[in-house]
Formats: sequence, structure tokens, C-alpha cells
Amino acid sequence: MRPDRLLAFTDGVVAILITILVLELRPPAGDHFGDILDEKGRLLAYLLSFVFVAIYWVNHHHLFQVVDRIDGRVLWANIHLLFWLSLTPVATAWLGETGVKAGPVAAYAVVLFGCAVAYTLLTLALLALHESDSQLAQAIGDDRKGKISLALYVSAFALSFVVPWLSVALFVSVAVMWFIPDRRVTRTLERS
Amino acid sequence: MRPDRLLAFTDGVVAILITILVLELRPPAGDHFGDILDEKGRLLAYLLSFVFVAIYWVNHHHLFQVVDRIDGRVLWANIHLLFWLSLTPVATAWLGETGVKAGPVAAYAVVLFGCAVAYTLLTLALLALHESDSQLAQAIGDDRKGKISLALYVSAFALSFVVPWLSVALFVSVAVMWFIPDRRVTRTLERS
Amino acid sequence: MRPDRLLAFTDGVVAILITILVLELRPPAGDHFGDILDEKGRLLAYLLSFVFVAIYWVNHHHLFQVVDRIDGRVLWANIHLLFWLSLTPVATAWLGETGVKAGPVAAYAVVLFGCAVAYTLLTLALLALHESDSQLAQAIGDDRKGKISLALYVSAFALSFVVPWLSVALFVSVAVMWFIPDRRVTRTLERS
Amino acid sequence: MRPDRLLAFTDGVVAILITILVLELRPPAGDHFGDILDEKGRLLAYLLSFVFVAIYWVNHHHLFQVVDRIDGRVLWANIHLLFWLSLTPVATAWLGETGVKAGPVAAYAVVLFGCAVAYTLLTLALLALHESDSQLAQAIGDDRKGKISLALYVSAFALSFVVPWLSVALFVSVAVMWFIPDRRVTRTLERS
Repeated sequence: MRPDRLLAFTDGVVAILITILVLELRPPAGDHFGDILDEKGRLLAYLLSFVFVAIYWVNHHHLFQVVDRIDGRVLWANIHLLFWLSLTPVATAWLGETGVKAGPVAAYAVVLFGCAVAYTLLTLALLALHESDSQLAQAIGDDRKGKISLALYVSAFALSFVVPWLSVALFVSVAVMWFIPDRRVTRTLERS
Repeated sequence: MRPDRLLAFTDGVVAILITILVLELRPPAGDHFGDILDEKGRLLAYLLSFVFVAIYWVNHHHLFQVVDRIDGRVLWANIHLLFWLSLTPVATAWLGETGVKAGPVAAYAVVLFGCAVAYTLLTLALLALHESDSQLAQAIGDDRKGKISLALYVSAFALSFVVPWLSVALFVSVAVMWFIPDRRVTRTLERS
Repeated sequence: MRPDRLLAFTDGVVAILITILVLELRPPAGDHFGDILDEKGRLLAYLLSFVFVAIYWVNHHHLFQVVDRIDGRVLWANIHLLFWLSLTPVATAWLGETGVKAGPVAAYAVVLFGCAVAYTLLTLALLALHESDSQLAQAIGDDRKGKISLALYVSAFALSFVVPWLSVALFVSVAVMWFIPDRRVTRTLERS
Repeated sequence: MRPDRLLAFTDGVVAILITILVLELRPPAGDHFGDILDEKGRLLAYLLSFVFVAIYWVNHHHLFQVVDRIDGRVLWANIHLLFWLSLTPVATAWLGETGVKAGPVAAYAVVLFGCAVAYTLLTLALLALHESDSQLAQAIGDDRKGKISLALYVSAFALSFVVPWLSVALFVSVAVMWFIPDRRVTRTLERS
């Protein structure tokens, strides 16, 4: 089966998730320009969650450039990823409201870990459907980036109960790592 | 007419329905990791509703792989299905809040029955447009799965006023039955 | 320009509008099956608004089957239609809460009239782009259904201040008239 | 890479943004037709925000008519634009609630400026991917409209602390300027 509808559905769900926190933004009560600062926390939480979901979308976009076909397992692996992604807005909101405390940081690590595992499973489900010399297999390679991300999230979870700020630093590191979508996909596409 | 826009519209509506309960998830009031448990009920309701809607989407996805054309009746049969699906989040929320009591379980059975009837009607509207040796007709066959589902939902409704937990067991059975999308579609597609 | 993106955008907006009132549906407070009746008003308002928006979507779907090209004016005419459609949920909600009183019925007539005018303008913008012997021109013809609808909505507005129930009867008549999407489109498509 | 998914995702996000303020519209408390006026402020804010987002969508639509390919940078430039656009509903809501005061007008100018900068950056990212004699390069030209808009928004921000009404007049001027989407695109398309 071709991935058309999986992509359309994913784009729809991600479009909703990326904008859900907008619904939390309220106009400030006052009428001075500086009153925007009252909404600082929510604005920042919105920005964080937006960037995070966007990074997943951009990488999903690149991944599926080299996907030829899907099956039922891929559909469910993708829905599983969407489920974890759908928890990031509420996790970010908790972080935004409480600040960098053990609870929300650990929860955030769990959600990010869930997303990363789901993305890895999706990758594996796709690899099972493509030949080992396919563009997809070449682009994914040994998925070092995916494995490092998983390890960093586990560390971030453990650290959150000790030095929560360090966990946040790890989240940022992983985000930076994935900000530039997989060059291997672009290179593979250009070569073909 | 080709089904393109029907699919795009369905994907859009389902993308919204599957994420509507996210809007109900609130960050916990405290800042300890264990405070997540305060949101246990809502998280579980969200998960249930998410899985349920996803099962319909996956099966709808498979069904339309073998659909060649649609007409006005199919459009309305599909919209009818979307209407019943749109009630599952609120039904799940009731169940999540009240627990396994007669009222919400019976309501849940009604909504699931409505979805199942609507899906069957959609199938019939599609069959009326396709030849009896079409891929679609072969894939659907005598629709035993559909008929069993309807019977189980009726039983679940009746049982809900006596042993509501048994009704929930029936819901789960049907979900499991449809979790793996129609193998007949995949087989039919592979043969062609 | 081809209408692809106009259709995708319309489907997205309509998918949101058709489900917006779901957000108003709350699980009943009690746990008896009969407690659903407490939500009767909202459920009915949701159903009405759902059907109404669906009728527009189905007719829009049929109309664009015979559209070959669009321009900037068509884009704006379509966005204008989406604006009026976006007001139907809140109009239906008012009707659902207050019952059949002059105020909400008149407001409903205004919104329906706005939608009908917008749909007519969209039709005219499309006709201006297509030859007089095009499938589109044949399918639309003298647009009798459109003109009758406009006249009925104007009457419904005037009547709402005297016998609001009669206005509601007129709304239903127009809905019935458009429930079956334009047979002319189907016939024109079959002939070609 | 082809822009298909970027467009689908953009259409989804914009469809949500354009309808988000509908969620703020409440049916009036009374049942007289005149009670609609109680919601005047919110209705107007909704209309403003709707038109504003629509103008961006129409111009984005025209711009991508002449786009052949995209890369990761274009994806991020586009997501950056979506982020700023997503702030316009809340900025409009503030303006609608407080009236034309320094605070909300300055905030509005900032958001509009952000959108305009993001649109310009998107244009530049696209130009970097297309030859200097491409349809895109011809259609964009020296982007005078973009530069004038940026200058007007900066002036509007400064003015907002002195004569906020004058800033609003500048916002309207820019909106009028972009209401008719780029004729250059249409002309370029017709010539080819």
C-alpha cells in the first residue's frame, strides 16, 4: 500500500497538536505593552512545544521521502508515534507552569522517551518492508542518532530527580541534534 | 466520482476526533512525578478513545484501498459514520469519570453500535457501486466480522444494566478483532 | 490554477467546523443511562449543526467535480463561504440553548442567508472562468435551487419575529432540498 | 523534494488558526435578536483575525504555484511563518477586548512584523533553490511589496505609543495591499 493517507492523517494530527497550546494563550488583562510579560510562561511553553513537535514533523517528512510502501504494522507504528507526540503539549504546559522541578522534568523525559521509542519502532517497521539496498535502508543506516537520543532521554529521566536543569540541557541537546533533518535522506535523494 | 476528497475530509475529521480528548488533559497541580496519577482517569480515557478511533481509521484506510468509485450515497454513509465516531470521545470521557457503571457503559454500547451500523451501511453503499467480482466484493465477502460485532454490541448493551464489567469485556473483544485490519484486503491487493 | 489546495484547505476548515460543537458536549453528571437526557439540548444542537455543515460540504464536493480551474477571485469567494459556515455552530448553539425564540431564529436565518449568498457568489466566480458549454455551466444551469433558497431564507428572517416555528420549517425545507447533492453534476459527469 | 506535504501541513495548520477564534464566540445570554450586539467585540475580532490569516493563506497559495522544489531550510522557514501566524488570533483578541490602546496595538504590530519577516525569509529560502530565470524569481522580482510592508509595520510599532489609531490605519493599508494576491504570479503562469 502507498503511504498517501498515512501522510495526510499524520499531517492533520500534527497540525492540531502543534497549535493546541495556542488555545491556552489568553490576551493579557491590562492594556500596556509590558503586560505581555504576564503571559511569558505560557508563551514560552507554547514556543517549546511548537518547536518540539515541528522537529518530529520535519524528520517524519524527510523519512517518508524514501518510503515506497507501507503495511498495517507501519500504520499502527505511526499511530503509536502520534499518541506520544500528542502528550508533549500537556507535558510542556506542566513544565511551563511549575518551572524546572523534578516532577514535570521527569514526566517530560518519559514523553520524549516514548516519542523516540515510537519513532525507532516506526523506522524498524519500515525497514522490514524495504530491501537492504533501498534508499530507505541507506538513509537510516545504523540509526546512531536514534540510539544516542534514547540513551540521553534515559539519563535525563534519572537525572531529573537530582539536577533537573541538567535533564533540560540533555533535552535541548537532542533537539539540536535533530533540528537539521537527516542529511542522509537528502544525500540519498540527490544521488538517485 | 473518485474518493479523493472523501478521504481527505475523513482524515481531517478523524485527526480532530482522535486529539479532542487531549484538550481535557491538564497538567497536575503539584510538581512531583507521582502527581501524574491524579490525571490517571483522564489519561486512560484519552488512551481508550484514541485507540478506538484509530482502529476505525485503520480499517477505513484498508477498506478504501480497494474502492474505485463513490457516489452521493457513499458520501452520506461516510458522514454518518463520522457522526457516530465523533460521539466516542464524550462517551469515553463519561466512562472515565464515572467508572464502570450501568449508565456510561450502556451509552458506550449505543455509540459503538452506532459506529458499527454506520460502518456496515458504508460497506453496503460501496458494494452497490462495485461489481460482484471486484476487489472490494472479494475483500468484504459475507462481512462476518461486521455481523459478529453488531451482535456483541447488542449483547453488551443488554448486559450493561446487569454486569457492566462483562459489557466492557465484550467491547475489548471487538476491538481486538478489528485491531488487525482486514487481511482480506491485503491479500486481495497482493494477488492483483 | 488548479483547485487542489483550495479543496484541501476547505476540507480542513470544514472538518474543524463540523466537530467544533463536540467540544461543548460534556459527559452527564450522573451515572444512569437516562442522564443522557440532561444533554439532550446540546446533542440536538450538535446534530443540527453537523448535518447543516455536512450538506454544504457534500454540495461543495459535487460542485468542484466539474471545476477545471480557479483564480484569486474564486479563492476569496470560497473563503467568504467558509466564514459564514464558521458561524453556524454558534448560531445553532444559541438556538439549542434558548429554544425557538425570535432572536436566535432570526440570527440563524441571517447566517443561513449569508452562507447561501456566499455559495451563489462562489458559483458565479466559477462560471466566469468556464465556457458556457462547460460541464460546470451545464450542471449549474439557471441555479433555480440557489435562488429559491435565498428567497426562503429572507422569508424565514421576516417570519422569525412573528411565528419563529414557521421559520424553522423553512430552514428544514431548504436542507431537504439540498440533502441530495446536485443530480445535474452526476448526470453531467456520467454523460462525459 | 516536492512541496506536497509542506502544503498539506500548512493548509491544516492555517485551517485551525483561522477557526480558533470561533471557539471564543458564545451564544448571547438573552433571546432577542439585538442581543447579538453583546458579542460585537468578539465577532469583530474573529472577522479581523480571519481576514488576516486568509490574506496570508491566499498569498502563500499563489507563491507556491511557481515553486518547483523545496529543502529542509524551506520547511523550517515555512514553520517559522506558521508560528508567527499562530499568534495573530490571540493578538487580535487582545485588540478586540481592550480597544485601540498602546499595548495591544504595539503587540499587534510586533506579530504582523514577525509574520512579514517570516514570509520574506521563506521567499528568500525559495529563491535560493530556484534559478534566476525561474517563474518564481520573475514573480517575486525585487519584492517591493514585502519591503514596504516591513517598513510600515516598523512605523506602526513606533506610532502605537503616540497615536495608536494611526498604526491601525497602517495595518489596514498593508492588508489592502496584499488582499489581491500577487498578480505577477498569475501573469507568469499565464505566459508559460
